[in-house]
Amino acid sequence: MKEQLLVIKIGGNVIDSEGNLRQFLKDFAALPQKKILVHGGGKLATQLAKQLDLPQQMVDGRRITDAETLKLVIMVYAGLINKNIVAQLQANGCNAIGISGADGNLLEAHKRHHAGMDYGFVGDVDRVNDTLIQTLMAANLNPVVAPITHDAHGQLLNTNADTIAQEIAQAASGPFDTQLIYCFEKAGVLMDVNDEQSAIPVVDKDYFEHLKANKIIFEGMLPKLTNAFAAIGRGVGSVTIGSWSQLTKLAIGQAGTKIINN
Amino acid sequence: MKEQLLVIKIGGNVIDSEGNLRQFLKDFAALPQKKILVHGGGKLATQLAKQLDLPQQMVDGRRITDAETLKLVIMVYAGLINKNIVAQLQANGCNAIGISGADGNLLEAHKRHHAGMDYGFVGDVDRVNDTLIQTLMAANLNPVVAPITHDAHGQLLNTNADTIAQEIAQAASGPFDTQLIYCFEKAGVLMDVNDEQSAIPVVDKDYFEHLKANKIIFEGMLPKLTNAFAAIGRGVGSVTIGSWSQLTKLAIGQAGTKIINN
Repeated sequence: MKEQLLVIKIGGNVIDSEGNLRQFLKDFAALPQKKILVHGGGKLATQLAKQLDLPQQMVDGRRITDAETLKLVIMVYAGLINKNIVAQLQANGCNAIGISGADGNLLEAHKRHHAGMDYGFVGDVDRVNDTLIQTLMAANLNPVVAPITHDAHGQLLNTNADTIAQEIAQAASGPFDTQLIYCFEKAGVLMDVNDEQSAIPVVDKDYFEHLKANKIIFEGMLPKLTNAFAAIGRGVGSVTIGSWSQLTKLAIGQAGTKIINN
Repeated sequence: MKEQLLVIKIGGNVIDSEGNLRQFLKDFAALPQKKILVHGGGKLATQLAKQLDLPQQMVDGRRITDAETLKLVIMVYAGLINKNIVAQLQANGCNAIGISGADGNLLEAHKRHHAGMDYGFVGDVDRVNDTLIQTLMAANLNPVVAPITHDAHGQLLNTNADTIAQEIAQAASGPFDTQLIYCFEKAGVLMDVNDEQSAIPVVDKDYFEHLKANKIIFEGMLPKLTNAFAAIGRGVGSVTIGSWSQLTKLAIGQAGTKIINN
């Protein structure tokens, strides 16, 4: 039997609050399983851009990464946020190691080509170095991954953290029984968006189509679930979506919404 | 016989010039030995502080690290500089992994206590995790170390890169035959400070005292050599001081000034 591995993703809603982050990292450190944390950016990059009078272009909720913005996100994501998380995990007895996609060649990507749109220095992942993951796991090191990749020709790239978590979970599914957990601000996929008690425990593909047709799943949740089904189709054992405040329960399948194959 | 390990330190004079850095990293990547790169900061942090209107206090050439300055140096050192170096090394076929002292608990430190002076969030190293070094070496990963440490209670600290290189070289001297190389802008300890051809090939302790007495060694070179002798006293095979532009020769003892025990 393969050993269990949790790939857990957190975003700005945890990172932007010192108290939330502290609680989450305490819970993360206490998980007995092997684990990888992938983190997003949050508001810090936007704040710093303002302080530096660096105008930020957003298109469809995505940051356009020009050369100066790239420097900024490398500093904030791979520097400030990543090292702060690692230091707190170490304080909680979790031997974390903070890396980006360039480190140990974890995530090779290419600059996005898009006919109608220049996203700037944004990377789409081509390859995950699963040997590195196995090396770090064997040494009982817990990778904390910043959403920065590289093109193997010296160029760093800005990459969506949800996608990185998915790619890592897929690549790790060879050697490990991998569970991907997306932590966000809601208790899961909610039947009623205003009722945190209405999380749907399990969603398979048929049910997903039903929920879409009935507009119960919409907007931000749609790409999350599309990614989740893609991951399951590529070897990931299960994908769970739920609240960062329930991490301990999410990790044992007692909270959030579990996405499964039918 | 122990395997050879090079611990190489570069400072601002390499980092601040894109061209110098590119050449140095190409040479570093080509070194056949196992190797660790420790880098300093350079002018980038000072530039960013100016852009952010963050006044910088320097005392005796040392930056006073208040809370905001600490964030800034974490972003610049562990983020921008570290990841840029790693991406370039990867492009040159060197499997680099960029880490700070918090990552894998590489460098545990304490906040400096000084009777007359508050240096702020500056760390003095207590412990190097040589198990981590051995793990990374065994996996053929080349650590690139940013001059940030942690106190194991969640606090990141700013630490002098020369000192970090020395501490790592000392700790690695158990399992490895360690050579410490300080790269700077001069060809070595110069007999005549205006003549780059006048590097003294070998300095032992007696000769060091002689050079000090005759004011051939002074100012910035003094602490470098004092550190070098301390390292040799603690197991480091040799310490070489020389020009970053001669790295290939420094690594085989054909350039720079070699510090040895007498």
